[in-house]
Amino acid sequence: MVATQQKQTVPERSGKERILEAARTLFDSHGFHQSSMAELAVAAQVSVGQIYRLFKGKEDIIAAIVQADYDERCMHMDALRSRLDAGELTVEQTFEELLLHVVDEKDEALSFDILAESFRNRPVGDMIAAMCVQFRGYIRDFACAANPDLSGEALDGAEEIVLACLFGLGHRSLSRPSLSATDTARLSARMIVAALRAIC
Amino acid sequence: MVATQQKQTVPERSGKERILEAARTLFDSHGFHQSSMAELAVAAQVSVGQIYRLFKGKEDIIAAIVQADYDERCMHMDALRSRLDAGELTVEQTFEELLLHVVDEKDEALSFDILAESFRNRPVGDMIAAMCVQFRGYIRDFACAANPDLSGEALDGAEEIVLACLFGLGHRSLSRPSLSATDTARLSARMIVAALRAIC
Repeated sequence: MVATQQKQTVPERSGKERILEAARTLFDSHGFHQSSMAELAVAAQVSVGQIYRLFKGKEDIIAAIVQADYDERCMHMDALRSRLDAGELTVEQTFEELLLHVVDEKDEALSFDILAESFRNRPVGDMIAAMCVQFRGYIRDFACAANPDLSGEALDGAEEIVLACLFGLGHRSLSRPSLSATDTARLSARMIVAALRAIC
Repeated sequence: MVATQQKQTVPERSGKERILEAARTLFDSHGFHQSSMAELAVAAQVSVGQIYRLFKGKEDIIAAIVQADYDERCMHMDALRSRLDAGELTVEQTFEELLLHVVDEKDEALSFDILAESFRNRPVGDMIAAMCVQFRGYIRDFACAANPDLSGEALDGAEEIVLACLFGLGHRSLSRPSLSATDTARLSARMIVAALRAIC
């Protein structure tokens, strides 16, 4: 009866979003494995039954969080590529915008929980690997825009190190940096473009 | 009685090392929070009491693992700096050796557990931040060796992005890369030195 009432007042989609939002906060502060579905239900103000109607279990919630972040990143990279292609952004501005978007990720503890999980839970690992394939594609396009002569192993190496930079800058808060996010994005974009143009 | 016998056959130092080695394997495969002291005792073939005589608790074991990795990295970076200063290595070779040492870290799941913990457990976070201060110092020295004119915000930016590269390349296995570790180190070192020389 309670569940039916909740279903009427909380539409399916909004319930899903509310659970995911509460899950991000709860898992980030307490840890994915240390949080129970009952705690999540309290945090999201839904019943445990409602969570299980929308998600198979905690792994399914983690997959939904990873997917949402992935969709958001791809949309951003896609928009950047269109603006670069249209001549609205220089290649250095493209890298700067890209870096500004990734520098200083939110929910870092949760992010590391998910990355740990990706080594112990094959579907999560496969999902992250598939995301990286897409990211690599965008990076290659941006690298070739900086230096159209790039190819072969030089391009492979550029792809590898730029992907590593994005990941590292996203998690730089671990090292408690003093350089601001905007300065980091600007200076890093300059260095990446300089490196891409200096090799072939 | 059992504990006394074990203490006689396993010297203090070797017991500590055995516990740390078993902890790395157990925590990596099962998760730091999901592993109990009893499981660790079985894996290390010691008694739970012996673990508690050597470590205050699981957090203390994690701190010892972080410290051991840190000492090992600092020793390696220190040796590289000496060889660079002595003219035994070019600056590009120095970066290549440095990258070869960090590319494709072991025990990645454990590493991410520890990083997640650093946001929830202040002493672990402080320890990692202190390690990064040391790493930043070495990186600045190597960057200045590549380009003695680097200073001010250009040097700050270089420090930030090189640290990010080291971190990202250390964890690149997430993206299931096809480029080998040696090729990655060689190509990345070339790009880093090219970038450092192109800015000032």
